[in-house]
Amino acid sequence: MSVVRSRLKGEMDRLALTLTSSLEHDRNIFFYDILVDLAHVLTLLKAGHISSEDAIPILKAILEVRDEGMPEGGEDVHEAIEARIIEKAGSAGMKMHTARSRNDEIATCLRLFARDSLLHLAYSLLNLREVLLNRAEEYIDAVMPGFTHLQYAQPTKLSHHLIAYHDMITRDFQRCMDAFKRINLCPLGSAAFASTPFQLDRHYTAKLLGFDGIVENSEDATASRDFLIESIFVSTSVMLTLSRIAEEIILWASEFGFVELPDEYASSSSIMPQKKNPDVAEIVRAKAGKLTGNLMAAMAIYKAMPLSYNRDFQEMNPLLYDSLQCVNLSCDVMAGMLEKVKFRTDVMEEKAGRGFSVATHIADELVKLGVPFRKAHRIVGRLSLNPSYENLKKIMEEEGLEPMDEENFKRCMDVKEVVEARKNIGGTSKEEIRQMLEDRLSALEKDADMVAGLAERISRALEELYREVEMILGGTVEKSGKVKSE
Amino acid sequence: MSVVRSRLKGEMDRLALTLTSSLEHDRNIFFYDILVDLAHVLTLLKAGHISSEDAIPILKAILEVRDEGMPEGGEDVHEAIEARIIEKAGSAGMKMHTARSRNDEIATCLRLFARDSLLHLAYSLLNLREVLLNRAEEYIDAVMPGFTHLQYAQPTKLSHHLIAYHDMITRDFQRCMDAFKRINLCPLGSAAFASTPFQLDRHYTAKLLGFDGIVENSEDATASRDFLIESIFVSTSVMLTLSRIAEEIILWASEFGFVELPDEYASSSSIMPQKKNPDVAEIVRAKAGKLTGNLMAAMAIYKAMPLSYNRDFQEMNPLLYDSLQCVNLSCDVMAGMLEKVKFRTDVMEEKAGRGFSVATHIADELVKLGVPFRKAHRIVGRLSLNPSYENLKKIMEEEGLEPMDEENFKRCMDVKEVVEARKNIGGTSKEEIRQMLEDRLSALEKDADMVAGLAERISRALEELYREVEMILGGTVEKSGKVKSE
Amino acid sequence: MSVVRSRLKGEMDRLALTLTSSLEHDRNIFFYDILVDLAHVLTLLKAGHISSEDAIPILKAILEVRDEGMPEGGEDVHEAIEARIIEKAGSAGMKMHTARSRNDEIATCLRLFARDSLLHLAYSLLNLREVLLNRAEEYIDAVMPGFTHLQYAQPTKLSHHLIAYHDMITRDFQRCMDAFKRINLCPLGSAAFASTPFQLDRHYTAKLLGFDGIVENSEDATASRDFLIESIFVSTSVMLTLSRIAEEIILWASEFGFVELPDEYASSSSIMPQKKNPDVAEIVRAKAGKLTGNLMAAMAIYKAMPLSYNRDFQEMNPLLYDSLQCVNLSCDVMAGMLEKVKFRTDVMEEKAGRGFSVATHIADELVKLGVPFRKAHRIVGRLSLNPSYENLKKIMEEEGLEPMDEENFKRCMDVKEVVEARKNIGGTSKEEIRQMLEDRLSALEKDADMVAGLAERISRALEELYREVEMILGGTVEKSGKVKSE
Amino acid sequence: MSVVRSRLKGEMDRLALTLTSSLEHDRNIFFYDILVDLAHVLTLLKAGHISSEDAIPILKAILEVRDEGMPEGGEDVHEAIEARIIEKAGSAGMKMHTARSRNDEIATCLRLFARDSLLHLAYSLLNLREVLLNRAEEYIDAVMPGFTHLQYAQPTKLSHHLIAYHDMITRDFQRCMDAFKRINLCPLGSAAFASTPFQLDRHYTAKLLGFDGIVENSEDATASRDFLIESIFVSTSVMLTLSRIAEEIILWASEFGFVELPDEYASSSSIMPQKKNPDVAEIVRAKAGKLTGNLMAAMAIYKAMPLSYNRDFQEMNPLLYDSLQCVNLSCDVMAGMLEKVKFRTDVMEEKAGRGFSVATHIADELVKLGVPFRKAHRIVGRLSLNPSYENLKKIMEEEGLEPMDEENFKRCMDVKEVVEARKNIGGTSKEEIRQMLEDRLSALEKDADMVAGLAERISRALEELYREVEMILGGTVEKSGKVKSE
Repeated sequence: MSVVRSRLKGEMDRLALTLTSSLEHDRNIFFYDILVDLAHVLTLLKAGHISSEDAIPILKAILEVRDEGMPEGGEDVHEAIEARIIEKAGSAGMKMHTARSRNDEIATCLRLFARDSLLHLAYSLLNLREVLLNRAEEYIDAVMPGFTHLQYAQPTKLSHHLIAYHDMITRDFQRCMDAFKRINLCPLGSAAFASTPFQLDRHYTAKLLGFDGIVENSEDATASRDFLIESIFVSTSVMLTLSRIAEEIILWASEFGFVELPDEYASSSSIMPQKKNPDVAEIVRAKAGKLTGNLMAAMAIYKAMPLSYNRDFQEMNPLLYDSLQCVNLSCDVMAGMLEKVKFRTDVMEEKAGRGFSVATHIADELVKLGVPFRKAHRIVGRLSLNPSYENLKKIMEEEGLEPMDEENFKRCMDVKEVVEARKNIGGTSKEEIRQMLEDRLSALEKDADMVAGLAERISRALEELYREVEMILGGTVEKSGKVKSE
Repeated sequence: MSVVRSRLKGEMDRLALTLTSSLEHDRNIFFYDILVDLAHVLTLLKAGHISSEDAIPILKAILEVRDEGMPEGGEDVHEAIEARIIEKAGSAGMKMHTARSRNDEIATCLRLFARDSLLHLAYSLLNLREVLLNRAEEYIDAVMPGFTHLQYAQPTKLSHHLIAYHDMITRDFQRCMDAFKRINLCPLGSAAFASTPFQLDRHYTAKLLGFDGIVENSEDATASRDFLIESIFVSTSVMLTLSRIAEEIILWASEFGFVELPDEYASSSSIMPQKKNPDVAEIVRAKAGKLTGNLMAAMAIYKAMPLSYNRDFQEMNPLLYDSLQCVNLSCDVMAGMLEKVKFRTDVMEEKAGRGFSVATHIADELVKLGVPFRKAHRIVGRLSLNPSYENLKKIMEEEGLEPMDEENFKRCMDVKEVVEARKNIGGTSKEEIRQMLEDRLSALEKDADMVAGLAERISRALEELYREVEMILGGTVEKSGKVKSE
Repeated sequence: MSVVRSRLKGEMDRLALTLTSSLEHDRNIFFYDILVDLAHVLTLLKAGHISSEDAIPILKAILEVRDEGMPEGGEDVHEAIEARIIEKAGSAGMKMHTARSRNDEIATCLRLFARDSLLHLAYSLLNLREVLLNRAEEYIDAVMPGFTHLQYAQPTKLSHHLIAYHDMITRDFQRCMDAFKRINLCPLGSAAFASTPFQLDRHYTAKLLGFDGIVENSEDATASRDFLIESIFVSTSVMLTLSRIAEEIILWASEFGFVELPDEYASSSSIMPQKKNPDVAEIVRAKAGKLTGNLMAAMAIYKAMPLSYNRDFQEMNPLLYDSLQCVNLSCDVMAGMLEKVKFRTDVMEEKAGRGFSVATHIADELVKLGVPFRKAHRIVGRLSLNPSYENLKKIMEEEGLEPMDEENFKRCMDVKEVVEARKNIGGTSKEEIRQMLEDRLSALEKDADMVAGLAERISRALEELYREVEMILGGTVEKSGKVKSE
Repeated sequence: MSVVRSRLKGEMDRLALTLTSSLEHDRNIFFYDILVDLAHVLTLLKAGHISSEDAIPILKAILEVRDEGMPEGGEDVHEAIEARIIEKAGSAGMKMHTARSRNDEIATCLRLFARDSLLHLAYSLLNLREVLLNRAEEYIDAVMPGFTHLQYAQPTKLSHHLIAYHDMITRDFQRCMDAFKRINLCPLGSAAFASTPFQLDRHYTAKLLGFDGIVENSEDATASRDFLIESIFVSTSVMLTLSRIAEEIILWASEFGFVELPDEYASSSSIMPQKKNPDVAEIVRAKAGKLTGNLMAAMAIYKAMPLSYNRDFQEMNPLLYDSLQCVNLSCDVMAGMLEKVKFRTDVMEEKAGRGFSVATHIADELVKLGVPFRKAHRIVGRLSLNPSYENLKKIMEEEGLEPMDEENFKRCMDVKEVVEARKNIGGTSKEEIRQMLEDRLSALEKDADMVAGLAERISRALEELYREVEMILGGTVEKSGKVKSE
């Protein structure tokens, strides 16, 4: 029997219950709810709202429930756990929900989930950055065709291209960390939304759970879900970046022929046995669409919600779980695939000059010889119909210009010379790329240290939480609460 | 070991497999895949591509797999079933996939799922229409306040309001049936996308599965998912309509006080024991946002997909399953709630005249007395600051007009008279409402007959399918394949 | 000075006015509002709510305003026009808004806009279908590579591929017509939402405006926007189909080399003079994303709107205008591009056999020789590593099978023979394609007749409207109101 | 004649041109393009790629074009300006596009637009925060009903509620600043995507335009639009917060009666003269849906874009302009409305105790008396059916408990006492609220200083840009380029 339904007669309509139940998705936060219960009990005890005599059976019961796994039944995970604890701890258990509501409880669980998942994401993105930089280093000299409008445009370098990916991913990493700082704050102690007449050391609770601080205003703490939306946005932003890489893998594994897929990241066909399909990249591309939909759903649900809590919020939670789990898995899979994919630099090099892709370089050389750019552009436009030195000479003469010398023209036609000539900051020359790699590797190291610091802080906080529980229970407790997102 | 992976070395990367596997969602179509297998084997047999000797063990194996439930393992449900059938039927089983591909197979399963779910939806919408009409009839005379901008605007009638809901739902019903006619067509026999050198009687296959015809062009049949998007759109359109009704239930159960929620459709609070919350309506409102997100995801995935099949399509399937299951459940729950909700007609009547809601009616009466509408509008605007007969007389005199007579003014102030006076087509007078109810009840009956006809046709086709199987197997077969969407 | 703002003091805040004004977008419906005014005045006159003496100056004023173009100022187009008419027609003009509200007025204008735009869309889609069928006929024999996962899969035919496009477009055409029948209904006569005490012949009004009937319930008529959302959905569905064609044009104009873009549908580069870019296809592809966003916006706005009118609805109108104008323009441009694009059938044919794309066909031939399909699939999987007759013979011998004869193998390797061999319904053989073309051309003709019939009915109705106006004004009136969407 | 179209024959198809032209929206960046041209010319000069003799006529021409306003014609604003400059400056003008492409040019313009608009947004949000804090201070003691599920839940305070709004807005402010730091970086000098053989001091260019640094990798610089998507996300996040406030204004101006709208922020009706409608709040609510759609469109367009530039990107630009302009206007309008809205604290206070909203407080008092919370919750659940002291006494006796003393019960029933009793951190007591206000006002001041610092840095940079231009032209130049977003 529900612990909360007391005033209403009978049970909820069976179909209505199916429609409104959150139990299917609650298992994503079961473990976090346990942590929240532990921290809340310690806080009640510290403030003297419950005695040690009460705290001991409650804490024991919580740990037992943790080890038993999520209980069956109940309206939701919070109620299911509380009911089980009351069963185990008797009337002491009936005190656990003092100075608390499911509203601050769920907000805390969601932030714990998002916090840990974003930290996981930070690690995944660091790993992906490393893979990209390593492969860029490996292919530092490889030329490849560059495209605009999917048309051959100018020769470039594979390493330069991979660094472009890296830099996009790095901005996503920054977004992840920016969101983290807004999310790793503790709403517990806000009760339903209007705070509580029980004084609680909310900073103590926050510390126990590894939060960096509190969400102060109790209504904001319980009635806001912008943190959830931002988490989904960050996930979607990452997926959009991944979808661009995935698209190129699909194209490059196709007619372009720039990559050969590793067997572990390819599928075959139930009817066409010769096929090797880029299914993994396709799924990543599709998942970007899926997460865009998740963000849409979250926003459509959240729009125009009056304060404070509305049950609508419940429908936002699975969107959070799904988005963060999906982006983490996708990052890791993409990193694996990018690490192992075989780049066909021979094909890239052979095609780098296609579509008269050196045209811009010739125009630039003409400019260096004193031809105004627009004129040079026009000359090369004519040249493109028949790109030979003879033709260039003829056109330049017609335009009343001193022809470019043949050596120079030959250098312009050599894609390797062309890419090396771009020594401008951020360009494709070897020195520039080496410099970019160096800077990024050192930034990567700093970022990795920073993330490791955050993870350790959380880890230590949870250890401290267990230590406090142990001190009360007078024995050692198995810790299974390290930073953990499934 | 996979039956399709032959050329590729080793297994797929474990994380990549987790990311790309569809098994979690495939159970929604397991049963449909069984039907597809049965129909395909009958078609192969009819065309002579397999012999009776082959057909018998295959059909037996299919029925066994059906009864065992979805097999474990495999890349997806299709492969899992086929592998199991090969285990059971040996080399005969290796012939089942002749003239077929997973591409036409999945397209057929999806259409079967969508077809049955839309039919379920049609029934749910018919039921909802009936509930709305019944309640409108019950409250045919009850006046209520009408709102624009959520401000008291003009008195209206509860029955008129409920008919407005009904008419919105009826258009959604029509959309459902329009989608049905495009969806209940059979793609099987198209193989991977380029058809097959085996001649098949595709119309026979279609008939066995209860389809109304075939999707002819084999590439269109396997590479199009507009039917899936349309199904999600129809679901979302219904949810948007339901979300408007849900919003009004939430408002009306709040300060407005127009309804009392049935206990079976309300929740209480973990901390505020006095509460009775409209959680069911809130979840329906939120689900409308969820389905909007599903539609977004499906469209974002589908956009710019080159022909023919891409693995991205797989990510669209769970969006279909979720959307149709959600809309069906929501419809049924809303119908239940609307059937049982208590309308507080006393409160409605008491508030119907609030906000000087008869102002427009007074203006209209002035027009009937010869005052141009814009002048009447201005007079009543002044009157609204102090709506008494004396004031009206004074204003009219100042405007040089013969004052309205007091009896007339009193009738204008009586909301019941006001609503009865609107005898215009589609208006709030009793005769108009009675006429609208009559017309709608008779249309409802026709629509119900039409839907029942469709359901019966499908039901008979599947019976025929089983009868053919029985004839081949020479015994009776338990039929469990009637129109069935979970 | 506003004709409606009478009771409120002073003007609206300047920034608030900028934010809330609809004037920028109202010009899309100015002309329709004129038609609505004419029809409403005729209806008032017929019912005797105004006299001929009033009707004449009002009608004259309306026609003058029509010829002057949209007036400046006002809250919105409806008020601007009415104010101008009152200026021109004096106190008669003050009677025009009798038995009407901006709520039924805007609903009518929107339906007129949507109705005409959908009719335009129907024509555009008919034209596109014709282009596709004509080009399919032109290339009836051309083989091309077929793809799954963007990998060479099986040889197919260009004509078959174009018919797949055609069939997708045809379903969009059907959706357009299904929406049309729900949209071409008249809400006028519903006033604010609660109907009006003035009796009006609403069927007469509907007929004058070329509607097929009325939206009966007055609250539904003014407070529903599902018709608007459905119109945007239909537009988006078309755009998604177009985006798939656009994607293929982009790919085919790239490394695949299957098309050469007509110069009128290509752009060059400001810095790379040799480029020929598929900008038009890229914009169409992007617009599919844009319209998806429009649909999402409309749904997010509409969700949970309480009845009846809310100002939020105003924000949905530009989404309707933009979506329908965009889809119409995109259809026409795509039809033009598809008509003129040069298909490189030489390249297609040369590449049709790539990636051992005949593998499935060989497997099918093995099946015809008695090898179970899964075994054949495995054999051809091995063969694909070295696809020679010698190798096939060797593998078959190892499998204990009688080898396929060499003639047969050669036929299997000939992509032209392969595509002709697929004589199954909906397949790639010449007879099948010829049959599909024939059926589609005849269906196209029927659809074209049907659309022409609708257009003519509307056209005649508007002529009749003007004839009635003329009879009252006693002279001829310049008609400029034929089916017209800008 | 186009300066870029040289190789292609004839003009683009007229409809295709209409579809692909960006001119309508380019006026949003005309002014920024002028700044980009100035900075680029100074950079070319500094590097010696053009001479002073060339620079002078070009700079003069740029300033003339700036003063003339956006030129007619051309493919887009960049080409239109360049063509005009070539007209004015002759062959010198043909050198301006040296070492540049429209790809880095547009990326720079978009970042300038976004940078300035986000800065404007920062100011708007600071202003809104100030308004909210001021009004909270004004109503520091006013009690009001608090809601969950839109049901009366617990008494709270208006000031506490307004601080909750403030804190949501503050997180949006932080998101705005986080985006700013990723956006205020200069892509110019990247050319088409592959950099350029001309050495340029990119840090100098960046400084001239007020950027904080450069986007280094040239492909990332030109082919990434995540900054644009993040800008739209930030705008949408703000709008979602505003939509929640707007929703409450709409509800509160309705049956709840908590506010009276200022006339400057309300509208009336064309047919119901007594009405005062919250149109402004409704439009803000709807715009939140609009911007959600913009974000979806941007994401759907961006998904799976291969590198580097694709014309699809063009369709993202209007989404950026529209979103930022809309959010800025909405913020300013909401601040004005919130500043002037009249809070009906009398009504709020009168309703604060409705729905037995003190129930939780009584339960909490029972807990303080030693009753376990769940038991207290049950007792108060029973009490809620008849909330009198006698009844409480009776229930407690039945439960075998010492009854609460009557004084205590009376205090529990006094909503003012109840809200003051919540002295927990973030609670509703006066001290807590005063503390929160103090902290927020001081944080506001710091944030305002920080934003002012950014604005001044940009302003000074542009002054420096003009000073350099003056030095070259040898005279004073009218500066009109201060931080300016329209």
